[in-house]
Amino acid sequence: MRIITISREFGSGGRELGKRLSDTLGIPCYDHEIIDMVAEKHGLDKNYVSHVSEKDIRVFYPSTIGHRFLTNQSALQQPVKIAAAQQEMIRQLALQGDCVIVGRCADVLCRDMNPLNIFVYADRLSKLQRCENRADESEHYSEKEMFRKMKQIDKERATYRELFTEDKWGRKECYHLCINTSGKEIKNLVPAVAAYVNAWFGQD
Amino acid sequence: MRIITISREFGSGGRELGKRLSDTLGIPCYDHEIIDMVAEKHGLDKNYVSHVSEKDIRVFYPSTIGHRFLTNQSALQQPVKIAAAQQEMIRQLALQGDCVIVGRCADVLCRDMNPLNIFVYADRLSKLQRCENRADESEHYSEKEMFRKMKQIDKERATYRELFTEDKWGRKECYHLCINTSGKEIKNLVPAVAAYVNAWFGQD
Repeated sequence: MRIITISREFGSGGRELGKRLSDTLGIPCYDHEIIDMVAEKHGLDKNYVSHVSEKDIRVFYPSTIGHRFLTNQSALQQPVKIAAAQQEMIRQLALQGDCVIVGRCADVLCRDMNPLNIFVYADRLSKLQRCENRADESEHYSEKEMFRKMKQIDKERATYRELFTEDKWGRKECYHLCINTSGKEIKNLVPAVAAYVNAWFGQD
Repeated sequence: MRIITISREFGSGGRELGKRLSDTLGIPCYDHEIIDMVAEKHGLDKNYVSHVSEKDIRVFYPSTIGHRFLTNQSALQQPVKIAAAQQEMIRQLALQGDCVIVGRCADVLCRDMNPLNIFVYADRLSKLQRCENRADESEHYSEKEMFRKMKQIDKERATYRELFTEDKWGRKECYHLCINTSGKEIKNLVPAVAAYVNAWFGQD
């Protein structure tokens, strides 16, 4: 079974790489779709699920239950349940067969399924450029604001990862393959990554 | 032109990967050979060239000329000349055509030739295992001694790199592709790396 997980720095093009890679390999890619599936299965609002899934959910975790200002315990437990539902969904999807999973600590959650774990990164300027290229016209960030946003989102990803493992987010030691997309068009990198993936699973 | 440079942690199998990759691609691999060529060209002893090329040559560098115990200036300048000769040799070899170059900061020295720069690494136990497997029968290192040796050699490589660039040795940001060989047989990774290389240069 070919499970490929993509972890990535914000702006590195990891999401695009995952999507294009799955197209090339002819297998599904799970990214935002996971949110939608969890929301649908549990009858919840997609935006709400997305919010609690992608932000630092440690603040919601049971250790906060004893907080003296706590008044609504069930409201705090809900995010924990959603996180658990997302984890379950990721494992279920992976068990269904070959796929690419972007983010969400799938590398850790699916460790027993021998995934190929890829980390995608780039230098600051390349990431800035990519963010600017894909920004909506309504979004107006200064360069400084964008760098701050990049840093903040990566920090949230690192923090989220800490819930599952002691392996540090972004440390090359935690992945099988690390790909630098600086100055590269993602679509031009895909054939190389696809070739690597095919050869990797061909002999495993 | 396909220039592939391999930087690597001691014991990670990077040298073997470089050699096998060059065989698969049908192009030369330069590793120890560079030492031999420099020695031959300059009429020097191979062991001597190897020693000053692979150790921390900063101690030999001109900044030490003012040292108050200095008595033999030419003896100190010789290693600097050898380092320069090695750099020149690396660039000459790269300019001759497609090749794999292992170590020796070739990634930095050949930057203007658009090489594909690979870093090879592994976890401590995998590196220990690999070192033990390839050790001569005459070598008897305890586990602790071997870990110390691994650390020391990587430190020398990092220090050597500092002579050429501010990019830090082993930081994933300094390479295009980082390959984790933990628990893998190098020969089984080669098809994937070769496929990546071919696709990389195919579209560049």
